[in-house]
Amino acid sequence: MPTREAALVRAVLDEYGEIASRGIEQYLDRARNAEHLGPLLADYPSRGGRSLRASLCIAAARAFGAPLNDAVKSAVSLELLHNAFLVHDDIEDDSEERRRLPALHVLHGVPTALNVGDGLAVLSLGPLIDNHATLGPRVAHGVFREAHRMAQESVEGQALELAWRHKNDVQVTSEDYFRMVLKKTCWYTTIYPCRVGAMIGHRRDISHEGFVRFGFLLGAAFQIQDDVLNLAGDHGRYGKELGGDIREGKRTLMLIHLLHSAPPAVRSELHALLALPRRRRGDDEVAWVQGLMRRHGSIEHAKNAANQLAGAAAFEFGIAFREAPRSRDRDFIEALPHWILERA
Amino acid sequence: MPTREAALVRAVLDEYGEIASRGIEQYLDRARNAEHLGPLLADYPSRGGRSLRASLCIAAARAFGAPLNDAVKSAVSLELLHNAFLVHDDIEDDSEERRRLPALHVLHGVPTALNVGDGLAVLSLGPLIDNHATLGPRVAHGVFREAHRMAQESVEGQALELAWRHKNDVQVTSEDYFRMVLKKTCWYTTIYPCRVGAMIGHRRDISHEGFVRFGFLLGAAFQIQDDVLNLAGDHGRYGKELGGDIREGKRTLMLIHLLHSAPPAVRSELHALLALPRRRRGDDEVAWVQGLMRRHGSIEHAKNAANQLAGAAAFEFGIAFREAPRSRDRDFIEALPHWILERA
Repeated sequence: MPTREAALVRAVLDEYGEIASRGIEQYLDRARNAEHLGPLLADYPSRGGRSLRASLCIAAARAFGAPLNDAVKSAVSLELLHNAFLVHDDIEDDSEERRRLPALHVLHGVPTALNVGDGLAVLSLGPLIDNHATLGPRVAHGVFREAHRMAQESVEGQALELAWRHKNDVQVTSEDYFRMVLKKTCWYTTIYPCRVGAMIGHRRDISHEGFVRFGFLLGAAFQIQDDVLNLAGDHGRYGKELGGDIREGKRTLMLIHLLHSAPPAVRSELHALLALPRRRRGDDEVAWVQGLMRRHGSIEHAKNAANQLAGAAAFEFGIAFREAPRSRDRDFIEALPHWILERA
Repeated sequence: MPTREAALVRAVLDEYGEIASRGIEQYLDRARNAEHLGPLLADYPSRGGRSLRASLCIAAARAFGAPLNDAVKSAVSLELLHNAFLVHDDIEDDSEERRRLPALHVLHGVPTALNVGDGLAVLSLGPLIDNHATLGPRVAHGVFREAHRMAQESVEGQALELAWRHKNDVQVTSEDYFRMVLKKTCWYTTIYPCRVGAMIGHRRDISHEGFVRFGFLLGAAFQIQDDVLNLAGDHGRYGKELGGDIREGKRTLMLIHLLHSAPPAVRSELHALLALPRRRRGDDEVAWVQGLMRRHGSIEHAKNAANQLAGAAAFEFGIAFREAPRSRDRDFIEALPHWILERA
């Protein structure tokens, strides 16, 4: 990726991430005095993160002609909801770490963490209510409908992933996987920010289907790259326990590839290993699965898939954003497909 | 309680409960096809229940002059959110039963149940969106703001109760208790239905403070009566494991009274018992605490408190509903304070 484009992505993420962080602070401040709750609501948001979703939302709105401020509340709401998802996901996956620190339920127990996740979800509705003053009732209501759809998709995607693990399903296909990722990751990470951005840019005539296709391809590439990093990334930068996905029995594209390409005996062993409780999959078991994935080309397969998806996303970008004039914000979004492949 | 008033309460609960159930069905139907999720969303709502909250919401709206249909969507939303709370509460309290059947996380595990609770919360937003078509944007937005406030209060109240248990706090006072109940129980059970009902009845000139006072007194009497039933009710009608509150270490008014009236040695024993993990408080320990509560008059104390609160609620009813002309709906709400004392 050319240095100039990588620098643009970093600059926009820094700039819009800072704006989103200030907005998040305002909403957390209002809840700060809630006894036994306020400080815990602030924990995950204060751990940092790239604010990719907020930045994409603001950039899409500006690319379609909205003033900077118009999309900030929607972006803040999305980041708060993202943090709510992270808290609940970490409980559901029994993850140990989040952003280099112990997960919230590890620090405070499942009951408190569950309630903090609920609190963050409730908090995320505040900026959508305040959108009425900024955007007027018609657009604010439109954004809220989009948020509702997005939250439904997310919960439905999470249900698929949880069911596969709960039932120890080893028949999951890559088609199943992409349906799950569309719902669980893409809708709130990429599709919703683009659709809402376009809506706030007052371009209601633009087909939303283009954003679904672009967002799906971009989000799927993002998720697969994330799963590759979970297996082989740099712990200091990745911020979660490496190999955690294998411990959790998560149906990644790599695991699905391995389950379909390993010989029957190995496949049975894998099935039995995945049936064990999480704690029984220790370092040795994780290393064994990693070795199998390398030998069977599962990691290469996933990297190739991410590459192809990113390439297709770059193509779909031209269709989805064809009515947006050239701008820094448009350039930022255009650079994202290749940028996500190179983050490590 | 005169038979005529008890019959009225039962008749209205049956009638409005049936209307709310049909509405809930419609929203569940839309989600029915969501794989691994749809049927689970329908589980708790299909287990029955009195629909007290939905009925109060519809009755308050009609008492202030709204047509029947105007409040139904808000009532449906509230019942769906109530079911979301129940699913998450049961995880947080590690409850074994709900409405005479195993709790959802007992049936499907914590991760799936947590996500189903999230799904029900998302589903509860649907009727509030659809309120726009029924009530127009101004009133619909007002109802949504009320819902947001109510959800915040609920999460804050839950945080108090969870923190007391998590820290094994034995200093909790009855004042603390009432603050917690105001937030956790009253706001969504009684205050919100009345406020929203009045708002939908297009009586924006009516002070909302009256509903906070009436709803607080009614809701607190309701919660205390519920806690008494948990200790000494009829399992078949109560629908949860009896004595479960003691097992869970829940800070009920009875436990708080006992902790403040028992001699120091007993108090220390109680403290140690409450510090144990839930599974270590078996039938013998529950019976011991129940015996102490009886001997120290804690159960009588709670029953007296519920009586006094219900009496005060009856007084505040006259103020909060003074501008509502005499009607069947007004009579229903007026009869609630005494009715809740007599349900067993």
